[in-house]
Amino acid sequence: MKRSDRLVSLTNYFLENPRKHTSLPFFSEKYAAAKSSISEDLDIVDRVMREEGHGHLQTIPGASGGVSFIPDFSMENGNQFINELCSRLQDPARILPGGYLYMSDVLGDPQMVNKIGRVLASVFSDRPIDAVMTVATKGIPLAYATASVLNVPVIIVRRDPRVTEGSSVSINYVSGSSRKIQTMVLPTRSLHEGANVCIIDDFMKAGGTINGMISLVKEFNANVGAIGVLAEADDEEDERVVENYTSLVKITNVDIKQETIEVHPGNY
Amino acid sequence: MKRSDRLVSLTNYFLENPRKHTSLPFFSEKYAAAKSSISEDLDIVDRVMREEGHGHLQTIPGASGGVSFIPDFSMENGNQFINELCSRLQDPARILPGGYLYMSDVLGDPQMVNKIGRVLASVFSDRPIDAVMTVATKGIPLAYATASVLNVPVIIVRRDPRVTEGSSVSINYVSGSSRKIQTMVLPTRSLHEGANVCIIDDFMKAGGTINGMISLVKEFNANVGAIGVLAEADDEEDERVVENYTSLVKITNVDIKQETIEVHPGNY
Repeated sequence: MKRSDRLVSLTNYFLENPRKHTSLPFFSEKYAAAKSSISEDLDIVDRVMREEGHGHLQTIPGASGGVSFIPDFSMENGNQFINELCSRLQDPARILPGGYLYMSDVLGDPQMVNKIGRVLASVFSDRPIDAVMTVATKGIPLAYATASVLNVPVIIVRRDPRVTEGSSVSINYVSGSSRKIQTMVLPTRSLHEGANVCIIDDFMKAGGTINGMISLVKEFNANVGAIGVLAEADDEEDERVVENYTSLVKITNVDIKQETIEVHPGNY
Repeated sequence: MKRSDRLVSLTNYFLENPRKHTSLPFFSEKYAAAKSSISEDLDIVDRVMREEGHGHLQTIPGASGGVSFIPDFSMENGNQFINELCSRLQDPARILPGGYLYMSDVLGDPQMVNKIGRVLASVFSDRPIDAVMTVATKGIPLAYATASVLNVPVIIVRRDPRVTEGSSVSINYVSGSSRKIQTMVLPTRSLHEGANVCIIDDFMKAGGTINGMISLVKEFNANVGAIGVLAEADDEEDERVVENYTSLVKITNVDIKQETIEVHPGNY
């Protein structure tokens, strides 16, 4: 295969297999090309990906060496994306009863969701993460988008047990804003002891739901390695029960009567 | 930018923007290259993508012309993937009460889910589809994976109304296997009249849930353009209420006592 063809094929391979360690001989054989030619190809892919802020190739030298593609979202691209997101969300027609925001259109756009996942994953890129956890329903697409880039499985916590998942562990937690006692369930087979979990959700008010997931992770003797949310409501900051999280946008000054709302970049 | 660099950048662009129509002048300007050079680049990308069974470039000539990348999964790749899926699912430890199958590990693997989405999307590639619909919870990742390739939004039907989505339309439907009357809800803002909807779900027994979604689509004066499921249970075929669907795998002869199960390719 010629260099030009190899570059298209390699780029496709890396984008389909993020963070997967692949040996150089694999590529040599696949393309029937010398290792030195493959090395030059990889330099080109690495340089272009870096220049365009999509990620970089991580090379491990030696006998068991190889290469893996680490997707990234440059700070510049990330900030630009978040500003676009803020202006899209800052529409008074989105205000719903209870200070919630209608975001189903944003969360229903797969290209948008994939970008949010890439931004969140880039923040957690250098932490050891074994799984992404979210609670049904709205956090699910964001969790998959993030996990897809981190190349780890997704674990979905439910508020109701289902017959189709076998035995499960359930915990009670206090919803932060309504102070109601609620239940969360996770199938026993879903999570291993000692795993490092990244918790993802779409919206955080006081943080009760995320706190519930933290308790659930501890119940399995696993660790919380990272917490990421698309949007946080600033108004409840003094009641917040969660620390050390990453938010992309922060929603402030929601006034239902005046129909005004402000959306600013979060702590990303 | 040199040809080698452009090929990496172009491949990345097309994979990130499936089915998006882009004009040639856009690329000429982005890469500061002659239109003839860009055309040659596109020929290379198109040829390699076709050869490897990932898709092809669709070129529209003329003044308003341009190019879009149509992702695909060659029949050969598709059949190979489905056979792998069958042997992975054909494990008696997966049998759950009621003839259900534990699939959360498969559905929790983002790379797996993305592949399932690509296979389903390739089946519906030449039909006009404006949105992908699914019902919470398990179908959600498959719906996003499919919609991501078709480049259309996702609509999530719920079994319980939520306060955070505004006004909604609800319907009652009869669950096919249990004959129970259930409810499905969709926010009014989610679906436009006349839209062509692709219904996606993880598992179909008699088809009551999918039939419910069909009724909901009709309630919005929209059309069902395609139906796709990951797995169908063969045992209930005589009671099936849904026609014209695509299934990737078919589960037969589930025997809870003998702990045996057979998984075959579906009607893909």
